[in-house]
Amino acid sequence: MAVSKNVKLPHLFYGGDYNPEQWPEEVWLEDMRLMKKAGVNIVSIGIFSWAALQPGPQTYDFAWMDRLMDLLAANGIMADLATATASPPAWLAKLHPESLPVDENGARYMQGSRQHYCPNSKAFRLYGQQLVRKLAERYKDHPALAMWHINNEYACHISRCYCDECTLEFRVWLEKRYGTLDELNSSWGTNFWSQKYYGWDEIGLPGKTPTYANPGQQLDYMRFMSDSLLDAYLGEHRILREITPELPIMTNFMGAFKPLDQFEWAEHMDVVTWDSYPEPTNGIPVFAAMQHDLMRSLKGGQPFILMEQVTSQVNWRQHNPLKRPGVMRLWSYQTIARGGDGVMFFQWRQSWAGAEKFHGAMVTHTGDENSRIYREVEQLGNELKLLDAIVDSRVESKVAIVFDWHNWWALELDSKPNRDVLYVEQIRQYYQALFKSNVGVDFVQPNADLSGYKLVLAPAMYMVGEGVADNLEAYVQAGGTLLTTFFSGIVDENDRIHLGGYPAPLRKLLGLCVEEFDPMLPGQTNSINVTGLGDADGEYSCNLWADLIRLEGAVSLGSFQADFFAGSPAVTVNKFGKGKAYYVGTQGEESFVNGLLEHILGEVGLEAPLEAPTGVELSVRTTGDQRYIFVLNHLAETVDVQLPEGAFVELLGGSTLHNKLQVEPNGVAILHKQD
Amino acid sequence: MAVSKNVKLPHLFYGGDYNPEQWPEEVWLEDMRLMKKAGVNIVSIGIFSWAALQPGPQTYDFAWMDRLMDLLAANGIMADLATATASPPAWLAKLHPESLPVDENGARYMQGSRQHYCPNSKAFRLYGQQLVRKLAERYKDHPALAMWHINNEYACHISRCYCDECTLEFRVWLEKRYGTLDELNSSWGTNFWSQKYYGWDEIGLPGKTPTYANPGQQLDYMRFMSDSLLDAYLGEHRILREITPELPIMTNFMGAFKPLDQFEWAEHMDVVTWDSYPEPTNGIPVFAAMQHDLMRSLKGGQPFILMEQVTSQVNWRQHNPLKRPGVMRLWSYQTIARGGDGVMFFQWRQSWAGAEKFHGAMVTHTGDENSRIYREVEQLGNELKLLDAIVDSRVESKVAIVFDWHNWWALELDSKPNRDVLYVEQIRQYYQALFKSNVGVDFVQPNADLSGYKLVLAPAMYMVGEGVADNLEAYVQAGGTLLTTFFSGIVDENDRIHLGGYPAPLRKLLGLCVEEFDPMLPGQTNSINVTGLGDADGEYSCNLWADLIRLEGAVSLGSFQADFFAGSPAVTVNKFGKGKAYYVGTQGEESFVNGLLEHILGEVGLEAPLEAPTGVELSVRTTGDQRYIFVLNHLAETVDVQLPEGAFVELLGGSTLHNKLQVEPNGVAILHKQD
Amino acid sequence: MAVSKNVKLPHLFYGGDYNPEQWPEEVWLEDMRLMKKAGVNIVSIGIFSWAALQPGPQTYDFAWMDRLMDLLAANGIMADLATATASPPAWLAKLHPESLPVDENGARYMQGSRQHYCPNSKAFRLYGQQLVRKLAERYKDHPALAMWHINNEYACHISRCYCDECTLEFRVWLEKRYGTLDELNSSWGTNFWSQKYYGWDEIGLPGKTPTYANPGQQLDYMRFMSDSLLDAYLGEHRILREITPELPIMTNFMGAFKPLDQFEWAEHMDVVTWDSYPEPTNGIPVFAAMQHDLMRSLKGGQPFILMEQVTSQVNWRQHNPLKRPGVMRLWSYQTIARGGDGVMFFQWRQSWAGAEKFHGAMVTHTGDENSRIYREVEQLGNELKLLDAIVDSRVESKVAIVFDWHNWWALELDSKPNRDVLYVEQIRQYYQALFKSNVGVDFVQPNADLSGYKLVLAPAMYMVGEGVADNLEAYVQAGGTLLTTFFSGIVDENDRIHLGGYPAPLRKLLGLCVEEFDPMLPGQTNSINVTGLGDADGEYSCNLWADLIRLEGAVSLGSFQADFFAGSPAVTVNKFGKGKAYYVGTQGEESFVNGLLEHILGEVGLEAPLEAPTGVELSVRTTGDQRYIFVLNHLAETVDVQLPEGAFVELLGGSTLHNKLQVEPNGVAILHKQD
Repeated sequence: MAVSKNVKLPHLFYGGDYNPEQWPEEVWLEDMRLMKKAGVNIVSIGIFSWAALQPGPQTYDFAWMDRLMDLLAANGIMADLATATASPPAWLAKLHPESLPVDENGARYMQGSRQHYCPNSKAFRLYGQQLVRKLAERYKDHPALAMWHINNEYACHISRCYCDECTLEFRVWLEKRYGTLDELNSSWGTNFWSQKYYGWDEIGLPGKTPTYANPGQQLDYMRFMSDSLLDAYLGEHRILREITPELPIMTNFMGAFKPLDQFEWAEHMDVVTWDSYPEPTNGIPVFAAMQHDLMRSLKGGQPFILMEQVTSQVNWRQHNPLKRPGVMRLWSYQTIARGGDGVMFFQWRQSWAGAEKFHGAMVTHTGDENSRIYREVEQLGNELKLLDAIVDSRVESKVAIVFDWHNWWALELDSKPNRDVLYVEQIRQYYQALFKSNVGVDFVQPNADLSGYKLVLAPAMYMVGEGVADNLEAYVQAGGTLLTTFFSGIVDENDRIHLGGYPAPLRKLLGLCVEEFDPMLPGQTNSINVTGLGDADGEYSCNLWADLIRLEGAVSLGSFQADFFAGSPAVTVNKFGKGKAYYVGTQGEESFVNGLLEHILGEVGLEAPLEAPTGVELSVRTTGDQRYIFVLNHLAETVDVQLPEGAFVELLGGSTLHNKLQVEPNGVAILHKQD
Repeated sequence: MAVSKNVKLPHLFYGGDYNPEQWPEEVWLEDMRLMKKAGVNIVSIGIFSWAALQPGPQTYDFAWMDRLMDLLAANGIMADLATATASPPAWLAKLHPESLPVDENGARYMQGSRQHYCPNSKAFRLYGQQLVRKLAERYKDHPALAMWHINNEYACHISRCYCDECTLEFRVWLEKRYGTLDELNSSWGTNFWSQKYYGWDEIGLPGKTPTYANPGQQLDYMRFMSDSLLDAYLGEHRILREITPELPIMTNFMGAFKPLDQFEWAEHMDVVTWDSYPEPTNGIPVFAAMQHDLMRSLKGGQPFILMEQVTSQVNWRQHNPLKRPGVMRLWSYQTIARGGDGVMFFQWRQSWAGAEKFHGAMVTHTGDENSRIYREVEQLGNELKLLDAIVDSRVESKVAIVFDWHNWWALELDSKPNRDVLYVEQIRQYYQALFKSNVGVDFVQPNADLSGYKLVLAPAMYMVGEGVADNLEAYVQAGGTLLTTFFSGIVDENDRIHLGGYPAPLRKLLGLCVEEFDPMLPGQTNSINVTGLGDADGEYSCNLWADLIRLEGAVSLGSFQADFFAGSPAVTVNKFGKGKAYYVGTQGEESFVNGLLEHILGEVGLEAPLEAPTGVELSVRTTGDQRYIFVLNHLAETVDVQLPEGAFVELLGGSTLHNKLQVEPNGVAILHKQD
Repeated sequence: MAVSKNVKLPHLFYGGDYNPEQWPEEVWLEDMRLMKKAGVNIVSIGIFSWAALQPGPQTYDFAWMDRLMDLLAANGIMADLATATASPPAWLAKLHPESLPVDENGARYMQGSRQHYCPNSKAFRLYGQQLVRKLAERYKDHPALAMWHINNEYACHISRCYCDECTLEFRVWLEKRYGTLDELNSSWGTNFWSQKYYGWDEIGLPGKTPTYANPGQQLDYMRFMSDSLLDAYLGEHRILREITPELPIMTNFMGAFKPLDQFEWAEHMDVVTWDSYPEPTNGIPVFAAMQHDLMRSLKGGQPFILMEQVTSQVNWRQHNPLKRPGVMRLWSYQTIARGGDGVMFFQWRQSWAGAEKFHGAMVTHTGDENSRIYREVEQLGNELKLLDAIVDSRVESKVAIVFDWHNWWALELDSKPNRDVLYVEQIRQYYQALFKSNVGVDFVQPNADLSGYKLVLAPAMYMVGEGVADNLEAYVQAGGTLLTTFFSGIVDENDRIHLGGYPAPLRKLLGLCVEEFDPMLPGQTNSINVTGLGDADGEYSCNLWADLIRLEGAVSLGSFQADFFAGSPAVTVNKFGKGKAYYVGTQGEESFVNGLLEHILGEVGLEAPLEAPTGVELSVRTTGDQRYIFVLNHLAETVDVQLPEGAFVELLGGSTLHNKLQVEPNGVAILHKQD
């Protein structure tokens, strides 16, 4: 059942993190029995095993890992083998205190929890890579070995380090990026505030400064930290690829996670995996859906693996409520519906000690196979066996949302007009309208080929780097529809203003100029009177921001109703070539965004795969000409869904349906149209 | 009037902290006059006198202290002489900067306020103990010397230090506790998160870690800090005991104070003393009452001394309102009612400079003996002279509440299911019901002999160490009644889960299994429908936590009314041997706790000493067959209290009463039944 | 047009910070054109040019500054030339890391933003003063040079440093202040909490202490930091005065800014300038008016310059709304009305990079002279040319408010009865009543000559230093009216209590004793029933504080209505000599303060220059016997203002008015009475 890096997986992955070094070996045998009963086909091992595998700088202990790998192989369970570098052993901190990261105040972190390493630490890299080589050499031909799991959740706790090694590496990184100090000084605008550099060794990290550090420096530091972590990853990756060229290699992401430019990272991963922990009392997990779509998009639609979720409850929030019965199953199917080829858990057996002992698991503290938790785990695992046909199928979308980590970093630097304009939140507001409409969406980088999409949304595209305006213009010129929003087109890739009237590089495309903008205070509102959008016409509340727009060809679709700019346009559309460019110069209330999107989706001819009540999530996976429609009922009542003509097989229950589908609360159906 | 460590005090203590080094010596004479007028019989001196007593490493100045001691002796006022180590002189910080404590970020504290020492500092210990020896040698035979006051409010500001000396001592402490690294690794569960230790010198303090430090390490660090402070105390104690074997020795506690395991400390104190500062606008001081009971319980019921309270207002809160007229007197009698053999103040004369100059005192800034404050002080001091009969009498209780510092520390570590479950608050909820019922209560450790109690409450007993389940089972078996609550019986003394179904060691006794628990968010509620508790039956709101209980012999007394576990038991009782074990699987509203406790008190046959309106506090002190009933009116109106048959002498007024007692607002009566 | 330090300015200053080193030199020519079009007559240059002027320790580059100065001269624009020391170059931080400031935890700040220097750093002083000498020598005879601008906004970000150089300098400062350790120990009250010093080198800074540092030490440290910064200023000042004895020298203040004792600083400035940034959504800028009055008062009424304001919006708040149209103009005239002889902006041209690129400017990112912003700038600049007659005229006031930085520092130290008693807020409550009444007010130091004033207000005069009580007594004795409020007269200049009954040094003058005080909690209120104040009689709410007053000659004007001190006086007046002394023992609601002040203003015979609706601000500037009445309409509607008999010329419009003046929303009129 081992998979190679370019081969389609035969089954959906099902399993979890397995940390058996916590338990006596007799428990391992019980684990194997319960895993097989639950349909587990893969486990992640060794993630936090560095200390167990390497008692000292020159000594290793692989005996227990040998036994574990053999046991897995004997039981037909694949190993997603970790490189174990996520948490260095205590002896490394003692031997190399400089390997510990340093905070912005210059205070050094301590060993005693996890992830206590500077990604640029030479000692960390050296010892870590030595271990990786040992592991790869030892297990490269082991029948259980299916996949490599490098480190774990990079930057989860430590996304920034301010140590001396980082300072030196930052200078190297800058010299590589800019070539000359003149270029750096210009990019950072160092003639302001007397920051001009005359030597590379004068440059520090943007740590504890009396007030706002230089924004260009801050932005480059975020790029540098993402690159430093990636470089640490690649150091291990190169060894693994060299020794096991056919095996897939990856690390696990954390969703819409700011510190890492995951588009760049994904180029160095054979499969994207991520860890998803929605707050269970937050209603329909729209944000989880959005992150599934984002993760799927990182490698152009290739299915991803959900590497971690929890069966019941986590322990790291202030309050950690349970997932209600059925919710874990429902959310697992959401994963698959949106492009996941596997659902896994942290962790297999709940710890009896340590910092995560109250984190839920597939087997709980009772060890009881009759617990609600295990029964849900078992049901799901055995159902997933029915879905081999889904494996490697795709989610096709005609809508794209532009997502750009560099824009995220720049937009949320300090010293902005309104510190409450948050990138992911702005994206989410438009995403939720698509989710509600059950129209599929991809995420793309701003320079991506957009020709396959009928609609492209680019909220809060503050940074417009080289080529982006041309790309968007070409897309609309050719008939595409674009929507962007306030505070877009403001700066270049170095966070320097596009002079000449906002949103300078997009003015022609949008047919307008933003003469001023007025950030609103919390609680402050205005309203917009929308006309020309059909069903969406009406008056809506808006807040957060108001652009003062001068039309230069665009048509107003709604104007502000209050304040000194009452009557001036708030929503516009501009015909450009064969397409249209919409602009929204404020943050409208949810019903406005929904109405606007419904109108535009109608214009471009996109609709849901089925008619279903709001609260029922739909998603389609396709392979060849086969379509699998996922129907997920997030509501507290049973719903009826009208089916189009023809016969549908429901894959989980096996029944054949005509005309109507009934789905229970937290229920799931997967419909396969029969020819 | 000097007392020896085993001798009953002839009078109630009355006095305060006396820091005359702040004043010219002519003021001292006025102090003597006002002290005697106010009935002061003891003062605490020297608490912050180290710098005044020792100008440099090798020089001492005892002349002023000699004069002070002589003056006190001449005026018949006892000296509670401090060892003066609570605040080292500036020269020590200069000479030994390593004696200053260090915070979790590695930043060193500075001299300039007080308590700026690491308890493990060798320099602090050396110089401190040299001073203690000098003091003891010099004053051992002085007629004023009545008691030793070691240091002051240990850990008030600095309860944790992260310096190098502490790191080294922690390793020694751990080696002593665990013997082997294998044992330590097992106890801390270091195989999780790659924390396994191969050498003692790899172990650090749980300071600035990227995320949750190992819980076992955190717990042991709290034990270690309590022990380190105790060791500093004992270093001084040994010298004093050696030189003045007959004199009582103590330090002053701070009530329900987390950093110190005060049960352990009390074993090394001849009398428990503590400092009480209730917020004066918080209504009836129930929490102060609880802490009086706790302090009295630390040495098995032996009377304690209230070492500090304030006459009027403190200065260390954000806002520092006055105690209203009569309140200081009322609360002083609460102290005595609940087992205090003395009430003292911080401080005698209000400072004219320094950080506490706005802290109230017995003599205020006016120096005026006609001030309201002094007049209240004078009245109280002269009244207390009437109460010699009370001295050394006991408060007898038939109810015990289990109180365990180790449980407190473990329960409130991070990484818990619900960070709002706070130990003392859980205790307080049950305590207040007993207070309202005017039923006396002791606090006991979990392994204590419970045979004398009719009812034992053990709320939030998260940690159940060795022998505890057996102790509780034996108690109930023999006819006792036990009540415990949610999140009990979860871990052993190393914070490792009791596997096999919560609350594993108590399952048999409670007759149930907690299959899952669901922490609630702030504002979230459920409700319980209580039946079978007589007058307490009805529907109550609950919040914070819900246990999902499977009965294994227990009977449900109330079930949840909402959520997916509606109908499952929330309150249970289990017959066990000759007794009963109650369990409450949620946090019920106050009226529920009151109703439940009233019911149980009725079952076990406990009631108030008199019938009195709610808001009137009653407490009984006994000596031989003499009973003294304290009646404290916390209400804003005069109340009538019905007396049982017979004659009562009211000690303060001297009148003899039959049938009825009238008590004014803030009024106090002490009734002595006549034969 | 150059001005000498003692010569009246010929025109009102108009211009802004000009940082052309951010732009290619071709932009400079466009700048000159736009400046002249907008009436700009002065610009501040070089403020953040250190790095541009000095590439390394021994190299300078003045070529660009030469060209800039020549260009300004050629265009008839004056240069306010900065010494450029506000932000040291990166090479200084590299060469002298000890020049970087240190926070209270011992963490060193980093280069990368601005103001990253310790004011006591020898390296900073040395290199800074070398640059200043170079600048002065080079440009001393340049025709553009009009004024010296030392550094910039001293202490804006770094008002406290805890480095080793500061520690050493603090000891020197203390030795100079106290002469002997005995004197220091007495002043600080070090016999409390064992803080007695036996050597100067034992004394540290009041940084990271376990609890409250010694208040005397804290207070002296604030004095020391103000003095250290002043000493850094004077180091540059001496060089400039030596080389250009005729040129005015100043630095820019920040209004009611706590870290600097600006009365002391102003003695070393030829003109006071300051930077004003009111929150634009906060309604009428009463607090800005108060600060204008304070700034004017620093040099005894000499006109000040508004060195910085913003045209549109800042970028350093969380949310940065626009100034509405007309508001910038209105507030600029408020400046002039209250004694400003110039209004300037930060900055001329909006940055295209760096930390302030979203801070508004006179020329915006569009560079467009048709933008609303530039048009408002142009209108104002050209209007100001009409007001030469105003230059150097004075604002005459018959009311004074005592303002004392040392009192501010002492009052807001920690360990106070109520931490919410904030000095400037207490002042503001009385100021706003005068503002509402359109009665002019000066600010004075407590030892000032008060004989010219009919009314003196001294709210919250906690600290009463030597001679102050005598000064106030003499003033009232001679017929003056004084008002002071709760928590006054409490301590001497070393924050030591005036013993003998609050407010000891003022008891005689006020005719009362404050026996106790009762700080109130947030949300807590009492009420006062006022009688004997005519129209102001009635019942008012009060909060924050209640004094328990015993009358000793004063008459009660209102008593508390609730709590145990109900009926005791809250507001009093005492006849003393030919005058009266009012006392307010609580914080009354706004209508109380307004009523009280109206009553007192009536008594002393002060009224507004015109009758105008509330919301219309009036202020009078006079020169010789000429009076200029400024009428500023802060309301959203047009108002009519009744004029007294005679003819008035309105200076901005040029019309002659009789009887009535009409002013539009945000409108301004300047009336000049014709003979």
